[in-house]
Amino acid sequence: MKRLVNDGYEVVEELLEGFTKANSDYVELLEHDKRVVVSKKRGDKSKVGIIIGGGSGHEPLFINYVGENFADASVVGNVNTSPSPEPCYNAVKAVDTGKGCLYMYGNYAGDVMNFDMGAEMAADEGIQVETVTITDDVYSSENIEDRRGVAGDIFVFKAAAAAAAKGLELPEVKAAAEKANAATRSMGVALSSCTLPATGKNIFEMEEGDMEIGMGIHGEPGVRRDKIRPADEVVDELLGYILEDHSLDSGDETYVLVNGLGGLPLMDQYIVYRRVEQVLSEKGIKVYKNLVGNYATSMDMVGMSITLVKLDDELKELLDYPTDIPNIKF
Amino acid sequence: MKRLVNDGYEVVEELLEGFTKANSDYVELLEHDKRVVVSKKRGDKSKVGIIIGGGSGHEPLFINYVGENFADASVVGNVNTSPSPEPCYNAVKAVDTGKGCLYMYGNYAGDVMNFDMGAEMAADEGIQVETVTITDDVYSSENIEDRRGVAGDIFVFKAAAAAAAKGLELPEVKAAAEKANAATRSMGVALSSCTLPATGKNIFEMEEGDMEIGMGIHGEPGVRRDKIRPADEVVDELLGYILEDHSLDSGDETYVLVNGLGGLPLMDQYIVYRRVEQVLSEKGIKVYKNLVGNYATSMDMVGMSITLVKLDDELKELLDYPTDIPNIKF
Repeated sequence: MKRLVNDGYEVVEELLEGFTKANSDYVELLEHDKRVVVSKKRGDKSKVGIIIGGGSGHEPLFINYVGENFADASVVGNVNTSPSPEPCYNAVKAVDTGKGCLYMYGNYAGDVMNFDMGAEMAADEGIQVETVTITDDVYSSENIEDRRGVAGDIFVFKAAAAAAAKGLELPEVKAAAEKANAATRSMGVALSSCTLPATGKNIFEMEEGDMEIGMGIHGEPGVRRDKIRPADEVVDELLGYILEDHSLDSGDETYVLVNGLGGLPLMDQYIVYRRVEQVLSEKGIKVYKNLVGNYATSMDMVGMSITLVKLDDELKELLDYPTDIPNIKF
Repeated sequence: MKRLVNDGYEVVEELLEGFTKANSDYVELLEHDKRVVVSKKRGDKSKVGIIIGGGSGHEPLFINYVGENFADASVVGNVNTSPSPEPCYNAVKAVDTGKGCLYMYGNYAGDVMNFDMGAEMAADEGIQVETVTITDDVYSSENIEDRRGVAGDIFVFKAAAAAAAKGLELPEVKAAAEKANAATRSMGVALSSCTLPATGKNIFEMEEGDMEIGMGIHGEPGVRRDKIRPADEVVDELLGYILEDHSLDSGDETYVLVNGLGGLPLMDQYIVYRRVEQVLSEKGIKVYKNLVGNYATSMDMVGMSITLVKLDDELKELLDYPTDIPNIKF
């Protein structure tokens, strides 16, 4: 496999060791639970605790989104695997200041089960934990509440984190996350599998030169396979699905994310952005802000996703809130 | 090929269109020369013009390093090809405020020839242009002045840009770049070729499972090929070359860059950083700051490089200077 790791079963521990060493001004691991990354930028103010997390292998998601006016803690699972209930609970214990905590993560069955158990353990001690599961991947189900969370996660995290930083209470912070989630739609394309570090194997097989429209970040099946098409055709198809599902109309404003899945050059991502902007412009949809780069990956997967957030004044204010997180300008 | 492009011969135009649309608050293309990216953050102050550039295919290098207190212009060549003399000259005309300009780029024969011609054209009009070619790749030659520039470019750019932003004159700005260049050493490893978008072909052949220590970012031959080794062994070997060449001793402070070449997961980059920090710590060398991520790529090449900058108070001040550039926190 074309990876630079040591023992493939130790990648998460070594990743966290490197990440926390590289960002020791920002984060640390809990002394008694090395699967919880905690912000050192929480300050003394009492506020709603923002806790995110999920499986590893999506870096910079979830660990780099811990910091000032962003998540207070990230709970870390093995590669493509939900974290266990204990670190979900330990994260609450570490960051709760008496105002309760909000869990946010992509909507996957394992994560739901384990975070829910963490919330129950916290409830037994009288700490209130609310949950918003993120459901931005439009193709993953017809029912919105059953959809998976992908790169759009970062907008939901930021909106809720900003609400918490402003001193809002748990119900309002949860409402901000729900509002951001309802406004966010994503869809991606994979041109390759990622490589599992423990086995050196792909998580699925794909013929050289093929692509799969709508594939999930763990290799969940998409709409269809085809030969790799020109970038503009791929963008048009993805945007077609997103805009059909989304209520974005002429005159609306949107925050655009073109997200690299790990192995796609930034050159290609800007070529993709070019087309996204063209199509939106033709439809009279204004790009308020954008991000182009690797914000939520599937390790070395070659591919990208497009996320559109429908904005109003409240979401703009929340998504413009100043933050300070490791290596990412957002 | 596993790329998302349209016409492979139009990638640079489409990249620049996407990049400038995505960052229209920061940059624009010159109206009369679409291969010159110019900062919109230059302000009205008279200052030394900072001009960087080189071939495309290294994004975010060079285009994302244009912005406030960073480069005033970037001159853009075709993929892995030096820019022509005219845009080098046009960049000077666009950003000179009467204090002269500094060219900075990686030390490659084509770039030297064409930027020198641009400087001569400017000299004919009475505009002074000085040049610092960057030579951080330790393995590329025994003679430092013959070495190539790789990811260490970004430290040289930043040091000179900060000196210019502080209002220093051209000789002092050039001296800052020379000082940063002399303090910077890099070395990389490739686990794959990149893919040329025009032909869909690799720039060199590499057996699956092989790596090449010391390879350049355009596929220039390195020290040796071997089967891919554990990350820690690779780091130890690269650091061995760097530290043998560098004058870093116990008690010194360094700025560390672990740079992904495009296709290597961020997970692996943090695992690499972990080992870099361990080795430096054992030697009593203190990490002052660090960057981990894709700062200078070779499109989809799987690989990484390590850069160490030996710091003193002057370089720390220059490298800590606040900047505002597209998508990069530096």
